[in-house]
Amino acid sequence: MGLRTASQYLESLRDGRAVFYRGERISDVTCHPLLRVAAEHTALEYRLAEEEPFRDLLVVDDPETREPISRYFHIPRSSEDLHKRGTLIETTTREGGSVVLLIKDIGSDALFALHIVAQAVDRAHGTRYLDKVKRYYEKCKREDLALAVAQTDVKGNRSLRPSQQAHPDYYVRVVRETPEGIVVRGAKAHTTNSVLSNELIVLPTRALGEQDRDYAVAFALPINHPGLKLIASPSGFEGAGTFHHPVSARHKMIESLTIFDDVLVPWDRVFLKGEWTFAGPLASTFVEFHRFTAISYKGPLLDLLVGSAALMAEYNGIARASHVQDKLARLCMYVATVKGLTQAAALNYKLVEGIAVPDPVLTNTAKYFFARNYHEAVRDVQDIAGGLLVTGPGEEDLQNPETSSFIHRYLGGKAEVAAEHRLRLMNLIRDLTASNFGGYNEVLAIHAEGSMEAQKITLLRDFDLETYRAFARRMAGLP
Amino acid sequence: MGLRTASQYLESLRDGRAVFYRGERISDVTCHPLLRVAAEHTALEYRLAEEEPFRDLLVVDDPETREPISRYFHIPRSSEDLHKRGTLIETTTREGGSVVLLIKDIGSDALFALHIVAQAVDRAHGTRYLDKVKRYYEKCKREDLALAVAQTDVKGNRSLRPSQQAHPDYYVRVVRETPEGIVVRGAKAHTTNSVLSNELIVLPTRALGEQDRDYAVAFALPINHPGLKLIASPSGFEGAGTFHHPVSARHKMIESLTIFDDVLVPWDRVFLKGEWTFAGPLASTFVEFHRFTAISYKGPLLDLLVGSAALMAEYNGIARASHVQDKLARLCMYVATVKGLTQAAALNYKLVEGIAVPDPVLTNTAKYFFARNYHEAVRDVQDIAGGLLVTGPGEEDLQNPETSSFIHRYLGGKAEVAAEHRLRLMNLIRDLTASNFGGYNEVLAIHAEGSMEAQKITLLRDFDLETYRAFARRMAGLP
Amino acid sequence: MGLRTASQYLESLRDGRAVFYRGERISDVTCHPLLRVAAEHTALEYRLAEEEPFRDLLVVDDPETREPISRYFHIPRSSEDLHKRGTLIETTTREGGSVVLLIKDIGSDALFALHIVAQAVDRAHGTRYLDKVKRYYEKCKREDLALAVAQTDVKGNRSLRPSQQAHPDYYVRVVRETPEGIVVRGAKAHTTNSVLSNELIVLPTRALGEQDRDYAVAFALPINHPGLKLIASPSGFEGAGTFHHPVSARHKMIESLTIFDDVLVPWDRVFLKGEWTFAGPLASTFVEFHRFTAISYKGPLLDLLVGSAALMAEYNGIARASHVQDKLARLCMYVATVKGLTQAAALNYKLVEGIAVPDPVLTNTAKYFFARNYHEAVRDVQDIAGGLLVTGPGEEDLQNPETSSFIHRYLGGKAEVAAEHRLRLMNLIRDLTASNFGGYNEVLAIHAEGSMEAQKITLLRDFDLETYRAFARRMAGLP
Amino acid sequence: MGLRTASQYLESLRDGRAVFYRGERISDVTCHPLLRVAAEHTALEYRLAEEEPFRDLLVVDDPETREPISRYFHIPRSSEDLHKRGTLIETTTREGGSVVLLIKDIGSDALFALHIVAQAVDRAHGTRYLDKVKRYYEKCKREDLALAVAQTDVKGNRSLRPSQQAHPDYYVRVVRETPEGIVVRGAKAHTTNSVLSNELIVLPTRALGEQDRDYAVAFALPINHPGLKLIASPSGFEGAGTFHHPVSARHKMIESLTIFDDVLVPWDRVFLKGEWTFAGPLASTFVEFHRFTAISYKGPLLDLLVGSAALMAEYNGIARASHVQDKLARLCMYVATVKGLTQAAALNYKLVEGIAVPDPVLTNTAKYFFARNYHEAVRDVQDIAGGLLVTGPGEEDLQNPETSSFIHRYLGGKAEVAAEHRLRLMNLIRDLTASNFGGYNEVLAIHAEGSMEAQKITLLRDFDLETYRAFARRMAGLP
Repeated sequence: MGLRTASQYLESLRDGRAVFYRGERISDVTCHPLLRVAAEHTALEYRLAEEEPFRDLLVVDDPETREPISRYFHIPRSSEDLHKRGTLIETTTREGGSVVLLIKDIGSDALFALHIVAQAVDRAHGTRYLDKVKRYYEKCKREDLALAVAQTDVKGNRSLRPSQQAHPDYYVRVVRETPEGIVVRGAKAHTTNSVLSNELIVLPTRALGEQDRDYAVAFALPINHPGLKLIASPSGFEGAGTFHHPVSARHKMIESLTIFDDVLVPWDRVFLKGEWTFAGPLASTFVEFHRFTAISYKGPLLDLLVGSAALMAEYNGIARASHVQDKLARLCMYVATVKGLTQAAALNYKLVEGIAVPDPVLTNTAKYFFARNYHEAVRDVQDIAGGLLVTGPGEEDLQNPETSSFIHRYLGGKAEVAAEHRLRLMNLIRDLTASNFGGYNEVLAIHAEGSMEAQKITLLRDFDLETYRAFARRMAGLP
Repeated sequence: MGLRTASQYLESLRDGRAVFYRGERISDVTCHPLLRVAAEHTALEYRLAEEEPFRDLLVVDDPETREPISRYFHIPRSSEDLHKRGTLIETTTREGGSVVLLIKDIGSDALFALHIVAQAVDRAHGTRYLDKVKRYYEKCKREDLALAVAQTDVKGNRSLRPSQQAHPDYYVRVVRETPEGIVVRGAKAHTTNSVLSNELIVLPTRALGEQDRDYAVAFALPINHPGLKLIASPSGFEGAGTFHHPVSARHKMIESLTIFDDVLVPWDRVFLKGEWTFAGPLASTFVEFHRFTAISYKGPLLDLLVGSAALMAEYNGIARASHVQDKLARLCMYVATVKGLTQAAALNYKLVEGIAVPDPVLTNTAKYFFARNYHEAVRDVQDIAGGLLVTGPGEEDLQNPETSSFIHRYLGGKAEVAAEHRLRLMNLIRDLTASNFGGYNEVLAIHAEGSMEAQKITLLRDFDLETYRAFARRMAGLP
Repeated sequence: MGLRTASQYLESLRDGRAVFYRGERISDVTCHPLLRVAAEHTALEYRLAEEEPFRDLLVVDDPETREPISRYFHIPRSSEDLHKRGTLIETTTREGGSVVLLIKDIGSDALFALHIVAQAVDRAHGTRYLDKVKRYYEKCKREDLALAVAQTDVKGNRSLRPSQQAHPDYYVRVVRETPEGIVVRGAKAHTTNSVLSNELIVLPTRALGEQDRDYAVAFALPINHPGLKLIASPSGFEGAGTFHHPVSARHKMIESLTIFDDVLVPWDRVFLKGEWTFAGPLASTFVEFHRFTAISYKGPLLDLLVGSAALMAEYNGIARASHVQDKLARLCMYVATVKGLTQAAALNYKLVEGIAVPDPVLTNTAKYFFARNYHEAVRDVQDIAGGLLVTGPGEEDLQNPETSSFIHRYLGGKAEVAAEHRLRLMNLIRDLTASNFGGYNEVLAIHAEGSMEAQKITLLRDFDLETYRAFARRMAGLP
Repeated sequence: MGLRTASQYLESLRDGRAVFYRGERISDVTCHPLLRVAAEHTALEYRLAEEEPFRDLLVVDDPETREPISRYFHIPRSSEDLHKRGTLIETTTREGGSVVLLIKDIGSDALFALHIVAQAVDRAHGTRYLDKVKRYYEKCKREDLALAVAQTDVKGNRSLRPSQQAHPDYYVRVVRETPEGIVVRGAKAHTTNSVLSNELIVLPTRALGEQDRDYAVAFALPINHPGLKLIASPSGFEGAGTFHHPVSARHKMIESLTIFDDVLVPWDRVFLKGEWTFAGPLASTFVEFHRFTAISYKGPLLDLLVGSAALMAEYNGIARASHVQDKLARLCMYVATVKGLTQAAALNYKLVEGIAVPDPVLTNTAKYFFARNYHEAVRDVQDIAGGLLVTGPGEEDLQNPETSSFIHRYLGGKAEVAAEHRLRLMNLIRDLTASNFGGYNEVLAIHAEGSMEAQKITLLRDFDLETYRAFARRMAGLP
């Protein structure tokens, strides 16, 4: 099989999948005027693997078969592997105009976690999950598949457990078993790029109690599997063109509400079923990998914020103003902190079942730091840009001879900066920060890969407080 | 004449004004499919004056003529007057769905400032500006006019003075005088609701040096005056309906790039011309009134953020979670601080030329506090709402029988909360914070009525540091 | 009786009270070399009442007897009364060098709360507490007494209720009743200025359950009452003189651990006993008054920080530096916010049982804002001052002829600033922020009058969230 | 020669040096009741090198001579070397009870910088500084000397250059040359541990202009050199014992005002003289090393804050309270960020003249992050501890039989926590954060190794903004 081309990938999406968008069933996502933007975006993942200078980073020889495979599927065994993986994710996201491509990273995060947890379940319960995980992983790798992961349940009342909800389907669950497999029902929220993937991996979202046993389920399905329905979200789509929306008119993720309408999952695709004590570990092991993916892909958006703010400061003639330098310094430190901690997380990995897991304390610290400070960074960038961000003329006014000369005359910045260039840069900043796409970026910053509260909880669980308390005891003269 | 009705107001906008929008000259702003939304919004100002329970607040007897006039034109003489004015602005903004109406408040702010500064100019230069200001004020009041104010110049290189720029027209200036009046040229940026007003008042934007004498100019013009051209900004307009955009599909401000294409201003409309030492005082006196207007109209948007966050916390079943209580408490204190300081600013007014000016230290503190913390408040609200803000289905998916039952079943919150209600509330929060309109709100928060830097500078200028230094000297035992 | 003089006050402290300090029983607090500093500080309260220009503020005619009384005892009936009370507290604190005097304000706060709650208890239980409160209040007022309030119990395990603790005495409780009165046992923590007062008022610290009935007790005692023991804290005392410690060598509060060693409280001094549902209301009503006292007395410390930072910026020649202006602006806004909200809290008072209670939302917002930002303000002040704060020479080095000329030559600031003056100002800032006293100020900022968490809880309880939710419902189109 | 013992080191301090303390000339710093505490503290540097398990970390074989030398003198050539150096500094500081020892790290930082800059000066000016630097370095290494560095001038008016000041001696300068050497005059502020070192290295503090040529001077002197006078600062010294001051009664740094009273520096100790264009590079190269030292030694203080806060939360019974978890998570992330960025700074080193220099962007980001957030961390720790921090009894009250039983009974925490243990922990926290030593820690946090403004400036100078601007240009469609 080997690596697929972008057109093979796009072709593979025309498989009868049940995609709904704004009230319509979409027969071919690669042809729909809006969804195709997102498909072209994810296709970049395949396109870049064919291009210099990216090929060396994106393609690696399989350690076993010596065949070229996508580096995403390479199981990390060292700090160096993790660091390369981080660079891979950062680089492809940068080529995606700051929007992560997310059709291989999240899926491989899930596969790594399944490798680790399947072994633990097998040891505890005498099951044979690891074999199934390995076969599934080999298939994904060999066929160079695009993968989505559905984790977050719709949850109903967030303060209740799955089995306590008003109806039993607020978390995905096993409704019955058959000789062919298990039948699952429920829905997962905000599944990214499911409509643009070949496979969907489904994981539990939280630790469970014994009474939640039916909710302890993990499995994988092809996207066009019967009963699987994807309601794609219209949020963040910009109708207008690349002048007003230089990034979002070209680059796009799509989330879906993912419905499991009594779906039959064949036994060889079932990776957890009822072993409720492992739901939490599977969820959190996935998250340990996936938050490292997260902090690796956050970089380019921050890069773009820093770069456009620095450039705009020059255009506006305020690059030397003390308060602007102050804001730029803050933005630079924001970027440096997220990236520096990401490197440190790879450096301090730990080997679990032979797989390198990034340091959870540093990963969660980086992720939290990113999320906590994003809105303030947006504020600083908007502050440097000025009110013209949302009061400027339209593209058509630049073309209308009755108005264009005024715009050219009056909206220039420093002497050498043309009004059109300044407006293009304003539009970039507005697109990133003060638009439907900007709103999407804000919400993503704080909710994707788990909330800030989740990061604090994970961090406290993994932080070795006892060493610190011991130091305090020693200095206080306590036994 | 007396008070106008909403329809008289809308009728008055059909006067041949030169409005451009997205490359087209708009012959009637009240009929255009998008601009009319904004016109209906500003017409509320007149509509509410006819309705209970608003009439008592919006209409007041003229102290001189005993005729009913719009309270906006009532010159404040006391703390009570300022407090009433604040309540007036807050109330009409609340009825505007958190969007300020801004066709009388900003104009009257300018008129109050002109009253004060004209007297000072007349005393210093023997001019007769006060008479002209009074006649113009009487006209506006008597005819119940809608007023816009153009202050911010387009500025070119922000680190240079007007006379140092690459071309002389980056700030509005007098190009020549005639027996009929002065001819002005230049452009003002982000003039709010100019296309929906009857009159435009033009003020200088900064302190000037002697070499900038030609830029020291203030005047007023009818909107349809020859040579005045308004390029309306398309930013923030939402195409979709009230389900997805419950506020912004109904309520809208419009900013324009306002062009003075060698406009002749008759002498009786000229309020400053060449008296360059008064450009700064006029700019800052206007700003003292206008920032009080600002902090008065910010309340309702914050109210709506607090209210929707509190409600969403209940819908999601997390109202008792400690981190949610923490965020709600922060949001409540944010609102209380802005409103409390606004009250204190009215309480500590000072009388200048018989007019009550709100305390500038408290006003600027409130304004800065609002601006500084807005993005963090947005973050907290989005945090409470959840990722569904930008990953939810479209309105049409609720109507499609293939998908609607899933949405109703899976997107509910706490037991008694219907999915549709939860989505409506999500949409409200997204509309306010994570959309084109949300971006507009963010930029407005930090740029409208001057930047945060401007507020710091004003504050330090007006803060009585010497009293504090004297206390320090006394305690340090210094002479 | 009438107003007492400072020497009458000091004389009254020599009454055999059981005060312990650093392992010794102190027979006369007014003679002890360290405690006398604190006694002279509190005596200021009486001294100022005899002096111009303070007398008019500190003394008022009793509305009933027309006799002059201390204004502290004047029961507030209006916004004006509250505002005057705030000014009184702020003024005396300023004369105390930024250290609150706290021998009448806290006590009168308790008396006001007792007036309100006693009426409610009497109505609910048919008791006669109000009469006893009134008689006690009359005595305090007529005899111009110095009052301390003991509220915070020692608490043991903070997550358990009084009746759940490892032993029953972690909260003050009634151990038995006799014909003469009740016998109480336990200890209260950090009672301010108890060793310098005439009377001690004891209040419960939290809401109680039925099983905590014995802990629902409020009463008053003379300080020299048998069984009452005060262990004064050595914290914050500075040995050195006024050169190194210009404030703390002159002005001082003292806290005690206050022991009730089976103390008999006569019936006429018992204001609550067993009516457990009123323990919470009494605690919180006291706090509503006392936090207003708090925000009134915080001002002078902030004033001194602002003043010394502004002066030091000049001495160091950096007053025009942009980052210094930025820090000064932040400090000024900090002061303005606390004071502005305090005014607003008085303005929005509510009448309860005929007594004006400051608005709790604004009061708690001000208090929280003060506490939350204090350490950052300290950082900014220290930042402006420079490292010399903690690396400068001693007073004796200025006197030693071998070193003094070097110090004079090298530690000057701007041309006209003498080294000695600069060092005096450094010492003031170090004393306030980077010394034992500075640490005391920091801890006080966040713990006195309740923790920040307590302020958030109070605020959410009193904030009218429903009005805000209703606005959100209306805008979201919800029923 | 080889490694010295602690007693050899202490002995070497008795050399007739001119040390002044509180108005007295101190003949032997190792015998003075207060200064000896500091001497014992720095002697730890030698003591630990003799002890397991520290010896392997503190001692290394000289790559050239194969003799054992102090690792401080090992010139870093790789990321690994820098990382080891960081661990060395962190470890010895931890053994110093969170107080850095600073008699070898700062000196070797200066030696590394001199190696780099001397080569550049020699290349530019044909001088022979590198040889002199190497000889001096060999001596320090071979004799295992304790080194102090004097960099910060006293500065006078901070907004003026050296040659513009009110008198010419506000910055150290060359007053004349002789055949034997140069004569220097002036003073340096806050020189750490000079009174406890063998040698003093003197560096310029800032970039200079041509007119400041006389101020471009670097050199080294033995501490007992004629004309060198050290006025030691009394700040931060605690009189009381280890119960009240468990850290500061044992561990102490001393700063001096360092006077150059027309000191003759022999030619072979002169490392820069008049080459004014290299004053800035020398200052900043030193700082690049020294800020890495800084972020390496900050860890243990933060460890102690985290550990004592976590322990106190347990003692107080509030470890599970949500707001406490929130504060602990913040503290943990604070520590993780500083340490993670320090690791990343070593990882991203660059080789300059064959010496590994830590990445300046990450180093300054870590340093700024530490400084910016220190006071807030202190607030959180004090918040968790409670008001008892500054209202508790004295050690003697625990011994007095009249009071001790009450203290034991009432000041316990959770059931199993004895009052004395809780008080010891309170004292640790007060000592670290709310005492003279706590104030010293705060001032150090923001001023040592340069102010936060300096870190921002360095960072912006070294940050590769152009790469970011290029990305913005590409995405905005700009040329």
